[in-house]
Amino acid sequence: MDRRGFLKKAGIGVAASAAFGPVFAQATPTVRWRLASSFPRSLDTIYGAAELFAERVSALTGGRFQIRPHQAGEIVPGLQVMDAVQAGTVEIGHTASYYYVGKAQVLAFDTSVPFGLTARQQNAWMYFGGGIELFRPIFADFGIIQFPGGNTGAQMGGWFRREIRTVADLRGLKMRIPGPGGQVMSRLGVVPQVLAGGDIYPALERGVVDAAEWVGPYDDEKLGFHRVARFYYYPGWHEPGPMLSFYINLREWGRLPREYQQAVEVAAAEANQWMLAKYDQVNTQALQRLVRAGVQLRRWSAEIMRAAQQAAFAWYEEEAARDATYRRVYTAWRNFRQEQYRWFNVAELGYASYAFPNP
Amino acid sequence: MDRRGFLKKAGIGVAASAAFGPVFAQATPTVRWRLASSFPRSLDTIYGAAELFAERVSALTGGRFQIRPHQAGEIVPGLQVMDAVQAGTVEIGHTASYYYVGKAQVLAFDTSVPFGLTARQQNAWMYFGGGIELFRPIFADFGIIQFPGGNTGAQMGGWFRREIRTVADLRGLKMRIPGPGGQVMSRLGVVPQVLAGGDIYPALERGVVDAAEWVGPYDDEKLGFHRVARFYYYPGWHEPGPMLSFYINLREWGRLPREYQQAVEVAAAEANQWMLAKYDQVNTQALQRLVRAGVQLRRWSAEIMRAAQQAAFAWYEEEAARDATYRRVYTAWRNFRQEQYRWFNVAELGYASYAFPNP
Repeated sequence: MDRRGFLKKAGIGVAASAAFGPVFAQATPTVRWRLASSFPRSLDTIYGAAELFAERVSALTGGRFQIRPHQAGEIVPGLQVMDAVQAGTVEIGHTASYYYVGKAQVLAFDTSVPFGLTARQQNAWMYFGGGIELFRPIFADFGIIQFPGGNTGAQMGGWFRREIRTVADLRGLKMRIPGPGGQVMSRLGVVPQVLAGGDIYPALERGVVDAAEWVGPYDDEKLGFHRVARFYYYPGWHEPGPMLSFYINLREWGRLPREYQQAVEVAAAEANQWMLAKYDQVNTQALQRLVRAGVQLRRWSAEIMRAAQQAAFAWYEEEAARDATYRRVYTAWRNFRQEQYRWFNVAELGYASYAFPNP
Repeated sequence: MDRRGFLKKAGIGVAASAAFGPVFAQATPTVRWRLASSFPRSLDTIYGAAELFAERVSALTGGRFQIRPHQAGEIVPGLQVMDAVQAGTVEIGHTASYYYVGKAQVLAFDTSVPFGLTARQQNAWMYFGGGIELFRPIFADFGIIQFPGGNTGAQMGGWFRREIRTVADLRGLKMRIPGPGGQVMSRLGVVPQVLAGGDIYPALERGVVDAAEWVGPYDDEKLGFHRVARFYYYPGWHEPGPMLSFYINLREWGRLPREYQQAVEVAAAEANQWMLAKYDQVNTQALQRLVRAGVQLRRWSAEIMRAAQQAAFAWYEEEAARDATYRRVYTAWRNFRQEQYRWFNVAELGYASYAFPNP
């Protein structure tokens, strides 16, 4: 179902309602915001969540509160959304906090870190484990208030031109893998490359890079990586449940009527769930097409997983020793993660590990 | 964080806003609805989702649309919520559709069936896999429009006074397990018992039943089962991702202004996510307390899982042969399930099966 269909679905089989006429009187203030996304329109599941969010806010306020989404580059480049919200160039942004680790390494935990939380666990942390509250003062220092704004679910490990069985096979490999995943890969001997989405395919085709990760089956398929690299590794341990975030300029937030704040908060929550459910659907279809096209699925060896996990936590400990804010968030996150893993190991994994391999 | 804290969180660190004064003019109609829940207030994660929903709808409409939740028994008994909404005794209900399989067996798929979808897969089915649309005409026949309204996540398999290793150990066992789970258990030789929550503990204590399932660690702990049955089995294959639903009387729905319909739909979506995230948090804490109290966690043997899965699908096929509506929903559901399992077997299970056992 497309995004517009989603909003209209409430009325299926029900006559359009106007029993009471227009709800909102003219006294209601008109507010217009611009939303800067870090993503191109072509990443339609991520970008679509910002569109759903904007449409829902409009519908909830009788069209009085209008938010217009702009894709990366229309107002500011994708990686400058945080600066744009902080400066008030735009009132709101839709982005991933780990793009801004140059400002503060701790921001990565607002998105995902290698061997971190799954999408469900990230939600549990954010909404009930203190995650949102831990980050509120951190974002307030940037003049921003943040809300969870979507999740891709566990990503894939990436596309490789040849099989990778051991840590030794990784040594010297040139791989497009930015951010925290690249940090960990570099500790395993990989030479991480940073390339924009559109530049990956030609680099992979000409052997400028040996491997590349992007998102998951649905988004990867559109960029055609399977035509130039046969081996598709999983799981994406570097991003087991990456969350997107809405950033709002604090001054603009404070000027909103309370009902408009409510509309923003609830529409963000809906977008958060919507994106994950949509990825779970579209990735399913895309994976089948990729396998039919001859893609070879390969699971990371336990040796590589173990080495990557050790490298990741060694790095987190180093950062924690350097920075008190990082240490506070990391310690809370690590404890939360450990407890969550214990529980998910029981009912959820107990079910999945029996049922999924036997569809 | 409690439910009220959750709603207030938007304002953390931000001065309360009134720059524009009250948003909604007096012309906005005042609407008052009564919500009948199938659950007691003591199931605070489930009941709390209905309370959050009602508060959010009120906040979104400037207090003009008031929904008052009532626990099971206050207006109608818990298992008569569907009838009450259909008759217009209440405008809205919060319930689990599998309580009403006596009216139509197909309703079980709106909640969960043995060896069915996980919570994430149920969301993907409902919102993007055609689930909501499949059920709209089915509920319209009862004069109802339905919305997803929460999920417990994978439940536990239940409490047993002695170890159960084989299908033979199940034979003749008296177990409190209602609904579809009981149906399947009866095919394995169990004698299913139907007991209300408050009656389970004494029955288990006195050996009137040998075993009982309820929900998961958090809710089970409150009823004290661990004091009278040591063995706590997992996973709850009979309910791998049970969804709650909001039922709304179609006539009342049609009379709502469009903005109020929007408020209902988005608040239901938020409640759906909220409940799962909260269960993921509170079950984690409760499981640790139970294990510290000496509870013996036991995983169902592969023999029992296999026998239960075969019995479940044999039963679904029988129902499908009997009833065209059931067949239509079951066929769509079975195909969706198979595709989802294939994808979840890759990135999500690939990650979980490595990471969770090694916290």
